[in-house]
Amino acid sequence: MDKKPVLFTSLSPALLHLYDISNSIVVVIDILRATSTITTALYNGARSVIPVDSVRRCIEIGKQIDGITAGERDGKIAEGLSYGNSPFEYPREFIQDKTLVLTTTNGTKLLHMALDNGAKEIVIGAFSNLNAVCNHLTESKKNVMLACAAWKDRVNLEDTLFAGAVISKIKEHYDINCDSSRIAESLYTQAKKNLFSFLKKNDASHYHRLMGFGLEKDIRYCLAENTADVLPVYRDGILVI
Amino acid sequence: MDKKPVLFTSLSPALLHLYDISNSIVVVIDILRATSTITTALYNGARSVIPVDSVRRCIEIGKQIDGITAGERDGKIAEGLSYGNSPFEYPREFIQDKTLVLTTTNGTKLLHMALDNGAKEIVIGAFSNLNAVCNHLTESKKNVMLACAAWKDRVNLEDTLFAGAVISKIKEHYDINCDSSRIAESLYTQAKKNLFSFLKKNDASHYHRLMGFGLEKDIRYCLAENTADVLPVYRDGILVI
Repeated sequence: MDKKPVLFTSLSPALLHLYDISNSIVVVIDILRATSTITTALYNGARSVIPVDSVRRCIEIGKQIDGITAGERDGKIAEGLSYGNSPFEYPREFIQDKTLVLTTTNGTKLLHMALDNGAKEIVIGAFSNLNAVCNHLTESKKNVMLACAAWKDRVNLEDTLFAGAVISKIKEHYDINCDSSRIAESLYTQAKKNLFSFLKKNDASHYHRLMGFGLEKDIRYCLAENTADVLPVYRDGILVI
Repeated sequence: MDKKPVLFTSLSPALLHLYDISNSIVVVIDILRATSTITTALYNGARSVIPVDSVRRCIEIGKQIDGITAGERDGKIAEGLSYGNSPFEYPREFIQDKTLVLTTTNGTKLLHMALDNGAKEIVIGAFSNLNAVCNHLTESKKNVMLACAAWKDRVNLEDTLFAGAVISKIKEHYDINCDSSRIAESLYTQAKKNLFSFLKKNDASHYHRLMGFGLEKDIRYCLAENTADVLPVYRDGILVI
């Protein structure tokens, strides 16, 4: 019998260095809202999404390629950019055939860390493309790192829940000797009947923050499965499907 | 109404720096088996426990003060030391009025980190002294950091479960804006009927490791509540009750 590939979960970017990912597919997870929005924009026909780590760089690249600049700081569109982080800002009639230059703090930082640590392949994961991620992982038969973007390195509920969702669907294909993965799966098992209620009941930090900005609709969308079931892959600085 | 103190959970020493603990009681948690053994030795009458971070230092201090030297590496008593990490090695008839010089990798490292980060007070937490820890925290009315020792910085199930046990008992006294705490509490809620079965079912990394050394009895003891219900406090380099 062939040896199964291994699967690990990193609950925060500050823990990623503990794992050898040089032979792994890294799934970058930033549910509220970066990876949900990236997946949605590409599903709706965006040519590509360019993730950048600063507002300055976002403006710069936006000009160079005539792209849509987007990003928020403290819940508002960042100064100098044109759009925000909500998946609802990127319907097909707007984003089709355009390039989205998106600056996010946690997700982009993690993506670059995965690159620096020599990840074999980097893909984007969100509830909106749960099936596409799971199918790709099991078909690839490679080692997997589920990498949560967290919030300023603090572990968060929603990214952990997504890792748990993936694990609960594909675990029989992997050797999993990783307590973080067990924790994520247990949490998801407990929460899966109603993820929104679970975040609400537990007053999750990011849930609380976004509700304060009036973004319940965004949260509910970001927790819905397979609404934009494509697989964004990172290639030479851009995300494409 | 008085403002409640805050409570945070750090699931790994690699995350501790994210929190300001200068005004907090830090509970050091290393369930399998350092903090369980420390609590047990002190409950059984040890004069004090001196936590040290290397075998060399353990031997050195053991000679200076005529103490009991203890510590393991890879499941065996470390070369040059006399005893191991099992709580069963420290019954009253052996340890009473003696000083235990204990070297542990994860727990001692975390304790020193808490010191370096300016913790107001450091106490030792284990299921064996769950009530003593909870009573002390709520009576003190200070901010709390539940600090998991983890395993070489990787998050583990048993330390997370203990953090969850504490939170489930004392949460109404604190403002908790911390997803790690929510995750720990949810996990404990799911596991509390039978912690041993939960670790077994999930094939927890450390459970697996200790079972491989034939230490089921140790694991079961370390998961039992209030068997050594004293509060070890760190003062000037030593742990006392």
